Amino acid sequence: MAYPVLRYENARLFVLDQTQLPWKTVMLELVDLESVEQAIRTLQVRGAPLIGITAAYGVCVAMNGIGDRERARLRGHEALRRLAATRPTAVNLFWALERMRPIVEALPAQGWRKRLEAEARAIHAETEAQDAAMAEYGVGLLAAGAKVITHCNTGPLATGGRGTALGVLIAGHAKLGLHVYVDETRPRWQGAHLTTWELDGHHVPHTLICDNSAAMLMRSERIHSVWVGADRIAANGDTANKIGTFALAIAARHHGVPFYVVAPTSTVDLALDDGSTIPIEQRSPHEVSEPDGHPIAPAGTAAWNPAFDVTPADLITGIVTERGVLRGTPYDLRAALGAA
Amino acid sequence: MAYPVLRYENARLFVLDQTQLPWKTVMLELVDLESVEQAIRTLQVRGAPLIGITAAYGVCVAMNGIGDRERARLRGHEALRRLAATRPTAVNLFWALERMRPIVEALPAQGWRKRLEAEARAIHAETEAQDAAMAEYGVGLLAAGAKVITHCNTGPLATGGRGTALGVLIAGHAKLGLHVYVDETRPRWQGAHLTTWELDGHHVPHTLICDNSAAMLMRSERIHSVWVGADRIAANGDTANKIGTFALAIAARHHGVPFYVVAPTSTVDLALDDGSTIPIEQRSPHEVSEPDGHPIAPAGTAAWNPAFDVTPADLITGIVTERGVLRGTPYDLRAALGAA
Repeated sequence: MAYPVLRYENARLFVLDQTQLPWKTVMLELVDLESVEQAIRTLQVRGAPLIGITAAYGVCVAMNGIGDRERARLRGHEALRRLAATRPTAVNLFWALERMRPIVEALPAQGWRKRLEAEARAIHAETEAQDAAMAEYGVGLLAAGAKVITHCNTGPLATGGRGTALGVLIAGHAKLGLHVYVDETRPRWQGAHLTTWELDGHHVPHTLICDNSAAMLMRSERIHSVWVGADRIAANGDTANKIGTFALAIAARHHGVPFYVVAPTSTVDLALDDGSTIPIEQRSPHEVSEPDGHPIAPAGTAAWNPAFDVTPADLITGIVTERGVLRGTPYDLRAALGAA
Repeated sequence: MAYPVLRYENARLFVLDQTQLPWKTVMLELVDLESVEQAIRTLQVRGAPLIGITAAYGVCVAMNGIGDRERARLRGHEALRRLAATRPTAVNLFWALERMRPIVEALPAQGWRKRLEAEARAIHAETEAQDAAMAEYGVGLLAAGAKVITHCNTGPLATGGRGTALGVLIAGHAKLGLHVYVDETRPRWQGAHLTTWELDGHHVPHTLICDNSAAMLMRSERIHSVWVGADRIAANGDTANKIGTFALAIAARHHGVPFYVVAPTSTVDLALDDGSTIPIEQRSPHEVSEPDGHPIAPAGTAAWNPAFDVTPADLITGIVTERGVLRGTPYDLRAALGAA
């Protein structure tokens, strides 16, 4: 199954509108900074690595209509600032913008547009290569015929490459044969909407479950392992990821089921000692009380809607990165990743 | 707030159609055995104690159009058999039918209809009295201003009286002032649909949360305790309740938050040594993949939909019954409840 997740050509960014999946495959054409900001904010584009790639191309798209280098430099700083404000938790966004910043600050007199585009394309290509490496390391942790659980969506849709956790499982199925239980992932249904669609496309046997059923599943079936992505990982291994990840990790620990995080090292934020200072995005309560626009509670019902939670490192069996599988009790990612 | 949950008069059973809440308050008139079976199966009537009461009145309703005692006896046995087949997990259903069985088996020559009705009314009245007693015992476990979490719906809608766990919290708020966090309770949204509606009606401050957020809430807020009902409790205290209860209990234990089950002793099944043999109802996968009729996954997606899970007794801090609060490591409900 091939589907275009993101494509940049002729100064235009095309992204698959993930809010319309699995019902419609609609490509959005993003031709200015505003439309890129909007696409990230509304989750038309989502998934920590893909947000990073989109932001990098977003800096290029922001230059449309600008011919003068000095104006381009100003516009570039505006783009860096505004794109950084779209979503607070996933660090890949800031990582990608920090890759673009030195180019913006030292735009060459000639070919400055091509230079920006080259950096964005490099970020995109590196992400694809990282996904391939993570898939290979991750598959080594699986077993033939394994039944696994995953949360949210971490496939090609989340990275523009093979995916992180789901990339491992898609590759793992091709080699070993798997059955994937898919957490529906309230409130935005990324598991139900996106992960089932991707697994279907890759012919991976799967079963949709309510998030609240995973614990019972671990008790009633022999679950080999649990696989999730990450939006930000602190130096001690504490991991922010889609809301519900923490509950799943607690249930896995209770049942002695290994719990793996799969994320490129660009997801690691070595500036943070631990997860307590990771900013957690609070989204509209209507995402909880009106899923997909269908109300489930009396009008005016208050709801709490953190988009992410933080799983403490001690619940994480291993972190699969493009450099290999990190383990530790405790984790020391500054040492492991060589904070030079 | 007063709302009629169930009423029996002139050989007709009126029940509030809980599948239409919170949008419409519609009373259903159940005039024959078929309509009572249907109401229980489709969750128009739900909640373990209320199912028991409904089944008892259902035996009475099944007699409509029958004048002859011998035909009534045969019809009574048919009603006992068919009502017992409506739902498998909640033991209150079987308990109520077993209360009706000796009356059916020894119908008096005169006034047999009144005798059946008297037993059903007695079951109904006892449930109301039990609810009041449980509320009093349960409130003793709360603290002023406590923030608590509850799962599914266990209010007046679930029992026809004050409710079980939610009955404790409604009474607790009146005395101590509480804030109740309400698990939405996938897949059927009993928390979002029913519990928010009841708390609103009783002016209890509350916030709706996704089931998968409770663990993070325990980490970010000081949660005093967690309160749930039960559908069947084995002799060792293992408790079947709405799917998601087990995950919530694991999260509570992880955070050192007390976890209370509130249920009348009619919910205890002393015939079962432990929870491993409690039959778990599997419901249609469409409840998961099409909540309230709105599809969330590609057509044909397989889904797993156990209606209940079993929480091991060692995760339960106390079981609040009409006879008092039971505790134990391990629990011995045969001794505590005097299995005579």
